[in-house]
Amino acid sequence: MAAGILLGIGMGPGDPELLTLKAARLIGAAPVVAFFAKRGRTGHARRIADGRIGATAEELRFEYPFTVERPVADPAYLADMGAFYDSCAQAVAARLDAGQDVAVLCEGDPFFYGSFMYLFDRLAERYPSEIVPGITGMSACWTSARMPMTHGDDVLAVLPGTLDLERLVERLAACDAAVIMKVGRNLPKIRAALVRAGLAERAVYVERGTMEGQRVAPLAEVADDAAPYFSVVLVPGRQRAR
Amino acid sequence: MAAGILLGIGMGPGDPELLTLKAARLIGAAPVVAFFAKRGRTGHARRIADGRIGATAEELRFEYPFTVERPVADPAYLADMGAFYDSCAQAVAARLDAGQDVAVLCEGDPFFYGSFMYLFDRLAERYPSEIVPGITGMSACWTSARMPMTHGDDVLAVLPGTLDLERLVERLAACDAAVIMKVGRNLPKIRAALVRAGLAERAVYVERGTMEGQRVAPLAEVADDAAPYFSVVLVPGRQRAR
Repeated sequence: MAAGILLGIGMGPGDPELLTLKAARLIGAAPVVAFFAKRGRTGHARRIADGRIGATAEELRFEYPFTVERPVADPAYLADMGAFYDSCAQAVAARLDAGQDVAVLCEGDPFFYGSFMYLFDRLAERYPSEIVPGITGMSACWTSARMPMTHGDDVLAVLPGTLDLERLVERLAACDAAVIMKVGRNLPKIRAALVRAGLAERAVYVERGTMEGQRVAPLAEVADDAAPYFSVVLVPGRQRAR
Repeated sequence: MAAGILLGIGMGPGDPELLTLKAARLIGAAPVVAFFAKRGRTGHARRIADGRIGATAEELRFEYPFTVERPVADPAYLADMGAFYDSCAQAVAARLDAGQDVAVLCEGDPFFYGSFMYLFDRLAERYPSEIVPGITGMSACWTSARMPMTHGDDVLAVLPGTLDLERLVERLAACDAAVIMKVGRNLPKIRAALVRAGLAERAVYVERGTMEGQRVAPLAEVADDAAPYFSVVLVPGRQRAR
């Protein structure tokens, strides 16, 4: 029997209407649909697929063993996450071996920061696969902010807010436009880096881009302790002659 | 009479199935559809919309007065392009004033390098507007290359190949993953910068991502004079412990 196909489906940032036609078609036809979720949560990618999964499809819910309560620096972190991804890959492989396609629902774009890549790394050499790109969370955020991000020859940097202050300042000095992710408790440090780079006045804070309850504000109006982890700070590129 | 709405519609990278459900709905309903095109060409964004535009919709085709034959450094370039965008904005404004919504078809994402921003800059303060994000060309390229781009805390840089050699080397040293756009005649310089940054072996060349005739190859296998302007070079991020 021919093996099933591993499908990595970009689900976009949250608004179900920002799904692509291709993603909608593949999700509806898949005999098995898999997704990651935090403990006790529906799972963001799964929620986007509401009403699109076939009535007879099997759902594989992969619940992270831990999230922010265990620091990445903990020596056990990588080993435990590795074992978790191994078990997810085994569950997917069993369906592929049985000839079933498995659609893995991925927030944003499958190859742009995300858990799907750990399944892909484990399975792509052994099984046929197909990836459907998706709209990234950062596109959703600059859309919500109504903010043209990059023109002409602008350099864009995508930076995790977890970088230390000096590296953030350095990286900000080397770009025209920036997306700073993983804001949360890093906000005071991010603000300090933007001030040193001379970019604080242009910076805009976005929470829940294109989703219900979205918030957009100049960074200056956001309190240091008010940002959830998945918020972003945007610095638009050079304004060009019109 | 209420003014029409300026709609900036992300059309994605080229595959018509990578249109979002929202883009498809808005294009089908718009009384006026506008798009940019090079002289004598259909226009890439327009081609993606084939079969979706309403039968009675008016089409506004904006033909660039010049493209690569006039260098950006030419003093007349900005003035002439400015006059061109002014006339496009006037044509759109006339329909908005008449109460008609105008859907502007944008390759990729409307706020990520593109001509729509020049219309938005001219019209957004005077008319209601709505933007629909789209899948970027770079997502299409790393999808075609079957290449996970960024993990965990990777820094991504998006760089125009038009930067000079020293700046390219500098910017490449300040990131983990890179997308280098506008390759074309800049390929020998881009290759030299990647060699100096120690990244040449990881670099992958992609032409026409997710489209017919796509080409993916290790950069080492691509001749210096073989790259069209809209090809990209990708450097994937750090490979992580699994």
